[in-house]
Amino acid sequence: MNTMGKILTLTTFGESHGLAMGGVLDGMPAGVNVDIDKLQCFVDRRRAGLVAGTSARHERDRVELLSGIWQGKTLGTPIGFIIRNANVHSDDYDELAQCFRPNHADFTWQAKYGIRDHRGGGRASARETVARVVAGGIAVQALNGMGITVEAKASPVDEALLQQAMAQGDTLGGVVECVVRGVPLGLGEPVFGKLHAQLAAAMMSIPSVHGFEYGDGFQLASRRGSEVMDLFVRRDDGSIGTVTNHSGGIQGGISNGEDITMRIVFKPVPTLMRDMPSVDIDGNPVTIKPRGRHDACVLPRALPIVESMAALVILDNYLIHKTNVF
Amino acid sequence: MNTMGKILTLTTFGESHGLAMGGVLDGMPAGVNVDIDKLQCFVDRRRAGLVAGTSARHERDRVELLSGIWQGKTLGTPIGFIIRNANVHSDDYDELAQCFRPNHADFTWQAKYGIRDHRGGGRASARETVARVVAGGIAVQALNGMGITVEAKASPVDEALLQQAMAQGDTLGGVVECVVRGVPLGLGEPVFGKLHAQLAAAMMSIPSVHGFEYGDGFQLASRRGSEVMDLFVRRDDGSIGTVTNHSGGIQGGISNGEDITMRIVFKPVPTLMRDMPSVDIDGNPVTIKPRGRHDACVLPRALPIVESMAALVILDNYLIHKTNVF
Amino acid sequence: MNTMGKILTLTTFGESHGLAMGGVLDGMPAGVNVDIDKLQCFVDRRRAGLVAGTSARHERDRVELLSGIWQGKTLGTPIGFIIRNANVHSDDYDELAQCFRPNHADFTWQAKYGIRDHRGGGRASARETVARVVAGGIAVQALNGMGITVEAKASPVDEALLQQAMAQGDTLGGVVECVVRGVPLGLGEPVFGKLHAQLAAAMMSIPSVHGFEYGDGFQLASRRGSEVMDLFVRRDDGSIGTVTNHSGGIQGGISNGEDITMRIVFKPVPTLMRDMPSVDIDGNPVTIKPRGRHDACVLPRALPIVESMAALVILDNYLIHKTNVF
Amino acid sequence: MNTMGKILTLTTFGESHGLAMGGVLDGMPAGVNVDIDKLQCFVDRRRAGLVAGTSARHERDRVELLSGIWQGKTLGTPIGFIIRNANVHSDDYDELAQCFRPNHADFTWQAKYGIRDHRGGGRASARETVARVVAGGIAVQALNGMGITVEAKASPVDEALLQQAMAQGDTLGGVVECVVRGVPLGLGEPVFGKLHAQLAAAMMSIPSVHGFEYGDGFQLASRRGSEVMDLFVRRDDGSIGTVTNHSGGIQGGISNGEDITMRIVFKPVPTLMRDMPSVDIDGNPVTIKPRGRHDACVLPRALPIVESMAALVILDNYLIHKTNVF
Repeated sequence: MNTMGKILTLTTFGESHGLAMGGVLDGMPAGVNVDIDKLQCFVDRRRAGLVAGTSARHERDRVELLSGIWQGKTLGTPIGFIIRNANVHSDDYDELAQCFRPNHADFTWQAKYGIRDHRGGGRASARETVARVVAGGIAVQALNGMGITVEAKASPVDEALLQQAMAQGDTLGGVVECVVRGVPLGLGEPVFGKLHAQLAAAMMSIPSVHGFEYGDGFQLASRRGSEVMDLFVRRDDGSIGTVTNHSGGIQGGISNGEDITMRIVFKPVPTLMRDMPSVDIDGNPVTIKPRGRHDACVLPRALPIVESMAALVILDNYLIHKTNVF
Repeated sequence: MNTMGKILTLTTFGESHGLAMGGVLDGMPAGVNVDIDKLQCFVDRRRAGLVAGTSARHERDRVELLSGIWQGKTLGTPIGFIIRNANVHSDDYDELAQCFRPNHADFTWQAKYGIRDHRGGGRASARETVARVVAGGIAVQALNGMGITVEAKASPVDEALLQQAMAQGDTLGGVVECVVRGVPLGLGEPVFGKLHAQLAAAMMSIPSVHGFEYGDGFQLASRRGSEVMDLFVRRDDGSIGTVTNHSGGIQGGISNGEDITMRIVFKPVPTLMRDMPSVDIDGNPVTIKPRGRHDACVLPRALPIVESMAALVILDNYLIHKTNVF
Repeated sequence: MNTMGKILTLTTFGESHGLAMGGVLDGMPAGVNVDIDKLQCFVDRRRAGLVAGTSARHERDRVELLSGIWQGKTLGTPIGFIIRNANVHSDDYDELAQCFRPNHADFTWQAKYGIRDHRGGGRASARETVARVVAGGIAVQALNGMGITVEAKASPVDEALLQQAMAQGDTLGGVVECVVRGVPLGLGEPVFGKLHAQLAAAMMSIPSVHGFEYGDGFQLASRRGSEVMDLFVRRDDGSIGTVTNHSGGIQGGISNGEDITMRIVFKPVPTLMRDMPSVDIDGNPVTIKPRGRHDACVLPRALPIVESMAALVILDNYLIHKTNVF
Repeated sequence: MNTMGKILTLTTFGESHGLAMGGVLDGMPAGVNVDIDKLQCFVDRRRAGLVAGTSARHERDRVELLSGIWQGKTLGTPIGFIIRNANVHSDDYDELAQCFRPNHADFTWQAKYGIRDHRGGGRASARETVARVVAGGIAVQALNGMGITVEAKASPVDEALLQQAMAQGDTLGGVVECVVRGVPLGLGEPVFGKLHAQLAAAMMSIPSVHGFEYGDGFQLASRRGSEVMDLFVRRDDGSIGTVTNHSGGIQGGISNGEDITMRIVFKPVPTLMRDMPSVDIDGNPVTIKPRGRHDACVLPRALPIVESMAALVILDNYLIHKTNVF
């Protein structure tokens, strides 16, 4: 269950304060150009401390590609990679070994496995997403080579509001919008493999995400059918398109050639910079004084993660679609 | 891609106007009691024509169980079943063979496969969901036997609004809320198998669904961390619970023992009972005069479908969780 | 676990004395011609009673195709089908409800599930293979359309030996040889998805099979490297081939364009037509007097099953291979 | 396709002369003791140069465990690991960039991907199996903790024969026998997931393997049913066992509690220490003068690989079986 995808699969591993995070991207076709510097830049967009309100954990997150790429090209073999965990302050977490932080995975994880690496959240830490961004960055390069682009934007965070929240040791949530342009007609599989169902699963697997919608999304609850009809039109080049895009580029679970549009909601960061009442492993009341390094708002760092998940899903479906006709 | 689930898997088949719809539910443990009459009643909740605003297609949808259940108990073998397509008016669809209805799968399907059974929407028809409800009804019975219940409700549809829309040949969307009660602590897998990611994928695979949220969902975009903190408390029985449930019963992708709450948005039915401008297979303008039987609002019939998807996901994760510790 | 394949998947269901056997063949590309009469003839090759030494169960095994094929062509949707169990004599098996037949699945099945449909062997009966032959027959037609053929032969069974064994209520085993001709270069995946590993798994899943080898197989244990070297040669058409075929058409797990050759061993039929000492469910000694209808030698009926498994694996790998390069 | 297993999955990566080999073992339950020194010893059994007739490549193969194990216990999270490729002599392979060695994967790989890392065989090298042995060694420890043992033996290689072959630059094949003791009743899944089918696929995926049999295997072709009947008997402890074990511990694809016995045939090593005639990428005749380091007989090094594959399959099925009943 640490694997996503069908043909293009990503398997990740790593605990926040272990030796390294890493992953295996399997199923990438042979012969794809990979620019390593560009990949490192993509991964750097996820780094902490580069944006106001984000955590002060400053590691470089240097990508070590171990296999699958040779002389700048993919080999068709699995791409193994690691990112060392260099800058860990595990002592910050000592008191959490026996306590459960509210709105974190501490309690459920302990109940599920009976054991956990509490340091920095262990496997449940959002640090896990660094492996997604390495794989996603490779997928983005492959898509770009086909004229497909992926762009995520955070809905504007009010700077005054953010400063005010931070001053009170509080945190904020927000919405990320993502658009995929240039997707060819026909990607996505009917019934359980609908393109938007796969995108939803991928986005909902990002830590802190609480909702997903595509096209007009939840607004459709209060609209009439006649108001949201994407009428067809023949374009100058003879192809068929739609005049509007309430459907978000997907009809019947299959891409229709328009932009794929989606929105993803992130909950406020659950670690506040103030005392929090909670319980220990026996249910006794405790006060948690957080001392780790944490973001006040996760949105800026989330953008390359959202783009990565979108790119991995689109590229996987591009490959799957090749098997639909002889 | 017509299969969902990991241990408990459902594979479905069937075109709307073919001989039969059907499915195979595999991985159901042995020895589970299945009440056939109760199952038929569950399936009947999805029937057309029973609720104002729903389609007039009146077939009985009689479930034929072909394997896997013997003397009222599951055998641990795959449960194969079919539902005959009795009441089909294929002639209603003749003119659609060469046309694309807006906001339907006609266009994308034709582009993807180069061939389609246009009658009644073929495989892209929501009739496909009847197989989900048969399997879901069995899963619901298994869950009930463990004290777990699943309940979906449609947010109230204004009857005047519905009548007004129908009078104009128009349609409405809406939101379905679903609550799963009694889920044990610890279900769901970290990273890509988060319980809410699996639920999202399952719900988004239902025809017409455009969005999914759990717990406080999209509202979390404008909330502070301190406002949505589900503080822990020791209950009288010694167990640990939370005072509030902004998290919707899931933390870190793993159930925490509280009610699992989610909301699913359905777009308005795309088939209007009025002339629609569109294009044919060559991009030439045409006018479509729908003659099939269609719902003005899909919500009432969607409830057992939503419950089925929830039940299948929860039961699958119940089984997966059995493999997490020795 | 009642599903095989990755892109082209077959899921089967059905107990020997239940209402029907059936399956779902998913992932078949759209637009493939399927000749229904030819398919029925292929399935008929597996029928009992047509060959000396085979069981007297005479049902017709009429294939009912329920979906996925329309106007003689595949739609790209799942192909659902059933075969009714018409000619069942369940009473023959009454005494077996509480006994375990040696070399059958009775004992292990009971231990695994705590419940079983003992009639005719239930799900463990070789009758299950009828669903494989339906799906396999469709795959064979698709392969034939690409110039690929599959042929299984049983190593000659000595007729006198068979008559002698039958006269004594005894049974025989044997070896089936299978050749696939015309397979294009490049099918099969490195490491865990080697073409011969997939073929082995498929063949070993046929009831009664105890071994699999390809190319020179077990003979290679006593050969020197220099004796079995398939030297390369440039053919007249400029392509590269090998002079000999000790490798059985597969090198490094990937087809090399030569004939794929394999051998599969079947154990003697475990049901003898004589009294057998055994134990009941409590371990008490019993004598089993078999009364069902059984083959003395399974080989003649096994041929279309072996061909079906080969065809399904080859076609699946043909589709997978389409995703290896852009 | 670089992944094996269903619940307990192993994904491997790495080219022979790349930076590192590695893998991710996912699905291992939490709380299993792992002795790191013992694991390193297990991996060392696969090392070259320790046995007469094996390759002179002397790297240490030091295992670096990166995640999933903490304080000597598994966490229930994916176990990521790498083994650096320290002692590579890539120059030995320069002339092979444009040539195909007979009975190797060079030709098929080039045809499949249009690109390959020819150095040391790249991904097709048997060096890939080092990752299997790391994962397998962990699985063996988990099984041992449950009283299950796995033992592989090579059928005796005649030392004089081996020396004679080596003197002539030739190589030998052979058979490995493997026994798994203490397997509980009930492991393995009916139909496509039969325990022996899974074992066959796992063994056949080892480089150079050409055949697999279990129990009496290919001998069953010439036996009568009455000669190979494993009669049941009640043991002193009240349990039911069999008097003989022609079935190799598996009946109907499910373990019956007896020893699981199997035999695996390895072809002679395809790299001879003498000039070999072959062709280059254009089909022109060339002479290949092998200069790498290679085994004359692979059997001694194959034992821990065979044990690893057996252990991974048995443990996976142990976990799968937990989902068969509530």
